[in-house]
Amino acid sequence: MALKAQALYDFIAEAGNNELTVKEGETLIITNQSIGGGWIEAQNSRGEVGLVPEDYIETGLCSLSLPFLSILGLSFFRPSHFFSLCLFQASNGNDPWSVWNADPSGGSNNNWASNPEGTQTGKSPADPWGSVSQGHPQAYQGPAEDDEWDDEWDDMKSTGGYAESESGDAGAIQRGAHASSMKISLNKFPGFSKSGPELYLLCKQIAKGKEKLPIYIGEVGPVWSYPETQLDCVVADPKKGSKMYGLKSYIEYQITPNTTNRPVNHRYKHFDWLYERLLDKFGSAIPIPSLPDKQVTGRFEEEFIKMRMERLQGWMTRMCRHPVVSSSEVFQIFLTYKDEKDWKTGKRKAEKDETVGVMVFTTIEPEAADLDLVEVEQKCEQFNRFTKAMDDGVKEILTVGNEHWKRCTGPLPKEYQRIGKAFQNLSAVFNSSGYQGESTLTDAMTAAGKTYEEIAQMVAEQPKKDLHFVMETNNEYKGLLGCFPDTIGVHKAAIDKVKEADKLVATSKITPQDKVTMAKRVSTMSYALQAEMNHFHSNRIYDYNRVMQLYLEEQVKFYETVTHFYRPSISVNWSL
Amino acid sequence: MALKAQALYDFIAEAGNNELTVKEGETLIITNQSIGGGWIEAQNSRGEVGLVPEDYIETGLCSLSLPFLSILGLSFFRPSHFFSLCLFQASNGNDPWSVWNADPSGGSNNNWASNPEGTQTGKSPADPWGSVSQGHPQAYQGPAEDDEWDDEWDDMKSTGGYAESESGDAGAIQRGAHASSMKISLNKFPGFSKSGPELYLLCKQIAKGKEKLPIYIGEVGPVWSYPETQLDCVVADPKKGSKMYGLKSYIEYQITPNTTNRPVNHRYKHFDWLYERLLDKFGSAIPIPSLPDKQVTGRFEEEFIKMRMERLQGWMTRMCRHPVVSSSEVFQIFLTYKDEKDWKTGKRKAEKDETVGVMVFTTIEPEAADLDLVEVEQKCEQFNRFTKAMDDGVKEILTVGNEHWKRCTGPLPKEYQRIGKAFQNLSAVFNSSGYQGESTLTDAMTAAGKTYEEIAQMVAEQPKKDLHFVMETNNEYKGLLGCFPDTIGVHKAAIDKVKEADKLVATSKITPQDKVTMAKRVSTMSYALQAEMNHFHSNRIYDYNRVMQLYLEEQVKFYETVTHFYRPSISVNWSL
Repeated sequence: MALKAQALYDFIAEAGNNELTVKEGETLIITNQSIGGGWIEAQNSRGEVGLVPEDYIETGLCSLSLPFLSILGLSFFRPSHFFSLCLFQASNGNDPWSVWNADPSGGSNNNWASNPEGTQTGKSPADPWGSVSQGHPQAYQGPAEDDEWDDEWDDMKSTGGYAESESGDAGAIQRGAHASSMKISLNKFPGFSKSGPELYLLCKQIAKGKEKLPIYIGEVGPVWSYPETQLDCVVADPKKGSKMYGLKSYIEYQITPNTTNRPVNHRYKHFDWLYERLLDKFGSAIPIPSLPDKQVTGRFEEEFIKMRMERLQGWMTRMCRHPVVSSSEVFQIFLTYKDEKDWKTGKRKAEKDETVGVMVFTTIEPEAADLDLVEVEQKCEQFNRFTKAMDDGVKEILTVGNEHWKRCTGPLPKEYQRIGKAFQNLSAVFNSSGYQGESTLTDAMTAAGKTYEEIAQMVAEQPKKDLHFVMETNNEYKGLLGCFPDTIGVHKAAIDKVKEADKLVATSKITPQDKVTMAKRVSTMSYALQAEMNHFHSNRIYDYNRVMQLYLEEQVKFYETVTHFYRPSISVNWSL
Repeated sequence: MALKAQALYDFIAEAGNNELTVKEGETLIITNQSIGGGWIEAQNSRGEVGLVPEDYIETGLCSLSLPFLSILGLSFFRPSHFFSLCLFQASNGNDPWSVWNADPSGGSNNNWASNPEGTQTGKSPADPWGSVSQGHPQAYQGPAEDDEWDDEWDDMKSTGGYAESESGDAGAIQRGAHASSMKISLNKFPGFSKSGPELYLLCKQIAKGKEKLPIYIGEVGPVWSYPETQLDCVVADPKKGSKMYGLKSYIEYQITPNTTNRPVNHRYKHFDWLYERLLDKFGSAIPIPSLPDKQVTGRFEEEFIKMRMERLQGWMTRMCRHPVVSSSEVFQIFLTYKDEKDWKTGKRKAEKDETVGVMVFTTIEPEAADLDLVEVEQKCEQFNRFTKAMDDGVKEILTVGNEHWKRCTGPLPKEYQRIGKAFQNLSAVFNSSGYQGESTLTDAMTAAGKTYEEIAQMVAEQPKKDLHFVMETNNEYKGLLGCFPDTIGVHKAAIDKVKEADKLVATSKITPQDKVTMAKRVSTMSYALQAEMNHFHSNRIYDYNRVMQLYLEEQVKFYETVTHFYRPSISVNWSL
């Protein structure tokens, strides 16, 4: 018996992907239910057969439709998320920067711990970490629109990151602006669990593992230990692969580290796995910027692949530059695994790592005297102020830059073109006058008209040469800054906990020795934060110096070139 | 007894002009009915006293309200005119170029005799000259919004131009967008009367007056006789004068011709008088461009006075450059009258001139063999095609130039300013980091931000330096080209009349000798038209060469200056 189904939403097939476009309400016949990866093969009334996302159709059997997800409490339909999805769709055209828009809800600022009274400790019923899922849309938003609908089920089962809940799978095939599920792994992320920073502050014994993260006092204050040779890698050569007998395809990138000079291949989902491991492990101490935004449609368009690769390169470069991240085992295995077996072993090991969340502070060893709580708190507040102010500044640049981008690639060159055409049209009319001695003028007018058309093209292409890099840098920093409220929040919560220490001793909830331990440990956390801020500042200065210099140089080149375009149409025609 | 009146329309008083603002429906007390010039002194309910235009109030005694005018058939409320009035009002702000918009009704093209079948002879009941009042809003629109409400009644009575009808006076004080009366003098203008060009073609005898307008055959074909020294004049030094015991004020301009080097003073209304005389006398043979647009409000604003002066200068320069116009008695008396008596005598003489309209062709003496009708018609059609095509081209430039002007003075510099501020803001945030070695970057970012602000200002000011002149030149040509349909129409009508000649001879309406005379006279008209076109072409090439050269040079200067603005912020900060 043919199983009938009804499309719940519009779905637009991607070319070359064996997908089937369906309209909301359209009746379909299910031709293959065992495709897997959240896909179903269906046939429409015109006899066309193709893949449709499972949850886009209602069969009465398998579909985890939205209301159902929501009953399970697994659907997290958030306006901010909806907004970012809309942006993705808007960004399919000529306007890649639309994703740069600041969150219009304005809610992103709520994350900043500018009001210390409003900040709750980890044990408070009003969990401040709830903000992780509600705040910055730029901050990681979970694998809601994984770019590959055909997740490898084997992998899924083997990873803690994806297989914890069915909703993780359901989320993985959500598509379009309908819904998205939260990143499940956050629930098990100690740094963001209700246990809070006291897990570290009060842990009985610090296991002396192999991992050690020393902090030295450098010229600028506390600094991480930097390797002699900085790790670097090249992300290149994106290749289309396919699986499920060619039914589904994906993009694989080649990553070549400067240490081995041997390329390894990774799909976006592997980067995503790495991101989750790094966030799990270092997120309390080090802001781990989210991966470049996922894009739902147009996955295989050249432009998009190029842009994603550029951004993955940027993300990897930033990770390579970080002395703690780049030397971590998980990062090293990602860059240097020898074969599939090596990779799988490394993955399993990384997923079993227990020194995650706030426990990362157990590995940090500052080579300096303990700081008192007042200084710890002052530093923390100073960093909070700075990162919040910079976040505002960066968003302002993104907003005006985005508008400027749109103007420079849209109406402005169109206008130059129209002016150019108008001059040339009038010149053509003049040529038809039948009057003698017209040519000097008409040649000049035609040349001026053509110059305008050339300027139009230059104006339209210029942003790619300069503004693009300003935007990319600021976009990267927006993502990075979006992580600071969480990182700083961990410190703030720890400080608050230490402040409570006397009361806890008085009520015998902790011993006086615990109090001493807590103070020492919050000092260690502060050294980590300061080392991280100094790392941030030094990178920031490097990045902005580079991008501003490039930008200004390209601007000068632009104006000089325009001048040179004009010159001939003047000098030739009026012999100046 | 106090005479009560009611305001028919809103009227907004002009500052410093002893006017009274009234609202439609407001009750007023007439305090002085004998102000004259179309004004009445009235008092409002708050006791304020001031002048109100007579026809803005209903007293039951004196007001020629709109319905009344319309019964008399003297009110010509046209949408196109309404449009141009709206433009005047819109142009009071920062956008002087809004008056450059092409007629959005599209009706302006109907004047062009592109369809010969559609062109009627002068005797047809569907008078083609009706188009004079319906066509180009840019073409002269009568003294509907005379800029001086206080017309000198003595002058009015003495002139044929204004005193022919009460509606002429009523029209002179119309204000705002309510209504306007047609230029009465057109009714008596033979070139545009029902008698048509046959007045000249068939006139029995050509009186041999002093006036002679020879046409020679030059290198480019038929040409007017050009004087050895070209007349020129300077319009300068606008001064505010007042009359009616200081109740009303006006602007007087100083005009100094290069022949006498002795300045004469004229108000706008005198220019308008000159324009009418020239239109009466030469309009059939020579397109007389309309005066710069009148502006209803803000007459004494510096910007407006400057703009009007610049345009009056442009108009006078064009008239001076025309060999026929500049050597005419009426133009000479305007430029060189010795005293008030001289001026009045000259005025009266000019107004009594009977060699006006098509009769001007009686003074034209081509020194060449007669042309046959085929050639005459071909030339006429060629000129019609060219001027129509140029009119389209000029309007296109005005449209895109207007948009470009708005962008360059509005959103674009605002955006540059915002970018500049964003860079400076981020630089300020960076300065607050407390991190060492920040100054190279922050200095560079601040400099870049300031550069952007400087560019913003340059961008906003640039159009005044270059686009302005392109727009002014094209605007002038738009006005000039708007006169061609009428001028060419006179020729077309004459050609059609000559084509009818055989039939007229057959029906004994004219003699065979009349037919010969008509053919000869239409040849004379054609020589005049060709001389005029050659004059037009030579001026056009001169004007456009000059304005294009200036424009391109200024554009290059602009881009070079921007480059120089950028240079320091790069070289100083990164020592390039």
